[in-house]
Amino acid sequence: MYYIGIDIGGTNLKAGLVDENYCITATRKQPLQFTSMEQMGETLAKMAIDLVEENNITRDQVASVGMGFPGPVNDKQGVVIKTVNIPIRFMPVAEMFHRFWDGVPVHLGNDADCAALGEFYHYEDKNIESLILVTLGTGIGTGIILNGRIHTGINGCAGEGGHIVLVHNGEQCTCGRKGCWERYASANALIRQTIAVMDQNKDSIIWGIVGGDLSRVDGRTAFEAMHQGDAPARAVIDQYLRYLGDGLSNFINIFQPEVIALGGGVSQARDEDLLLPLQSIVLEDCFGREADRHTRLVKAKLGNDAGIIGAALLGLQARDR
Amino acid sequence: MYYIGIDIGGTNLKAGLVDENYCITATRKQPLQFTSMEQMGETLAKMAIDLVEENNITRDQVASVGMGFPGPVNDKQGVVIKTVNIPIRFMPVAEMFHRFWDGVPVHLGNDADCAALGEFYHYEDKNIESLILVTLGTGIGTGIILNGRIHTGINGCAGEGGHIVLVHNGEQCTCGRKGCWERYASANALIRQTIAVMDQNKDSIIWGIVGGDLSRVDGRTAFEAMHQGDAPARAVIDQYLRYLGDGLSNFINIFQPEVIALGGGVSQARDEDLLLPLQSIVLEDCFGREADRHTRLVKAKLGNDAGIIGAALLGLQARDR
Repeated sequence: MYYIGIDIGGTNLKAGLVDENYCITATRKQPLQFTSMEQMGETLAKMAIDLVEENNITRDQVASVGMGFPGPVNDKQGVVIKTVNIPIRFMPVAEMFHRFWDGVPVHLGNDADCAALGEFYHYEDKNIESLILVTLGTGIGTGIILNGRIHTGINGCAGEGGHIVLVHNGEQCTCGRKGCWERYASANALIRQTIAVMDQNKDSIIWGIVGGDLSRVDGRTAFEAMHQGDAPARAVIDQYLRYLGDGLSNFINIFQPEVIALGGGVSQARDEDLLLPLQSIVLEDCFGREADRHTRLVKAKLGNDAGIIGAALLGLQARDR
Repeated sequence: MYYIGIDIGGTNLKAGLVDENYCITATRKQPLQFTSMEQMGETLAKMAIDLVEENNITRDQVASVGMGFPGPVNDKQGVVIKTVNIPIRFMPVAEMFHRFWDGVPVHLGNDADCAALGEFYHYEDKNIESLILVTLGTGIGTGIILNGRIHTGINGCAGEGGHIVLVHNGEQCTCGRKGCWERYASANALIRQTIAVMDQNKDSIIWGIVGGDLSRVDGRTAFEAMHQGDAPARAVIDQYLRYLGDGLSNFINIFQPEVIALGGGVSQARDEDLLLPLQSIVLEDCFGREADRHTRLVKAKLGNDAGIIGAALLGLQARDR
């Protein structure tokens, strides 16, 4: 049997055929061209149907179709509540899909939750029951898996871990609050912090690394300058690790999950620069220091495929119910 | 059938016989006199046996015995890992209990978790699946019920919601971190904040309310002065509500639970002073504003009985598994 996963992004739609080993065996990708919810429903169904036909399998071999949307969903009702950057409001996706392909179970998830589910099923230890994926990007996305299932909350809006206030009355966040974790520990926050320290240190090596062009500063720049011995860059990274570690410790004190996986470009920094110091920070800070078991802090594995795989496996999660 | 619950505090042991309506029908209370873990195990068993014999029921009528300890436990193994204020470390409570009363299922819980479970079973809407109890006392205790069960984490240490950093690099907390929520929003924090504002406002009405005696300041003092029109007291309460609301919004953004119940003395303030403004703050701040369902923020109901009732119902929770 196969599972189909579709990852709905603001720019592209990506669909994948996922096998019983939770691996992608074929994909399709097309630009998002949204004209109406009706058209969108048809596009999603046709993408799934094309994926089946192109790969010479039958519809009967597909156990379920799952879709990850950038926003809250109501999986039981088969409805997407709303999405970021796409004008979807209360879209009955499952019903629309079934007009073109009837009978196949359709499952909906939030994209960050789907990514977490993908990492969960791909984690080396298959006996774990809980995993939190923390993705460091423009903001901080989190997906929470407890007892092998996504924690969605009563309205599909749970798991907004980037929007935990870490600095009371701090920087204004896009969510309306002030001082959210993602304002201090996302990849974009690291870029802003790097630029701020450049501004204060005109002789920092960082200037040379980006050729004097602030638009070339990214989530790797400060790490690179630190390796070349730049003190301001080290200060940026040290502070960034404190912000990041503080939020991770918050999650551990609340959940004590088996695994926290870090995703996004920043998470690919060398272990000695990011993962190892973070492991020390959280072990020192958290409750449960003396317990026999601790949360394992690891790098996420799947990269951009996590969303497709997790969306596909929404069906598996539902079957286990 | 009955359930026996024992609430182990730093000063007293309280046991209760709980009926199938989750109500206490009889209690026993005795001072904690700890000499050894052996003796403690015997004391707990004898308390339960006495409760049965005094109330003319038979051991067969007791479905299970549950105990709430001030610290992390491993319920599956029947072991208390450690406790605050009592020198218990890795105590095999279930095994010790069974030396005196064999055959009855024994369940262990953390006291804050037990209190949350008690509130959960007593909540007016019996169809809820999630409730978080936030108790404002010396610190902030939280108990998290998801899918009708206590969320304990991998090591029994989850649910330490008071130890979420709200003010990065803020006040030193007893847990070792800086700026934890409980340093700003517990009952003790409110008392410190009241005293600080008195210090800056020698003409504040608060001075008269406590007869000039700082040791008489409690969690009600600032509310009372505010009602008498005292501006410094109003400033204290306004700020306190922001701290409290910020942490509650954090919980909602993570969990979107059906219910958050506020417990502890401070929660008994008039609704217009505490519950109603908090409801406005979290509704304005949280994700899911536009969703069809929102977390209900309510006052806890059971007071000091929550711990006994919740401990007793640990058995019910286990039976549902």
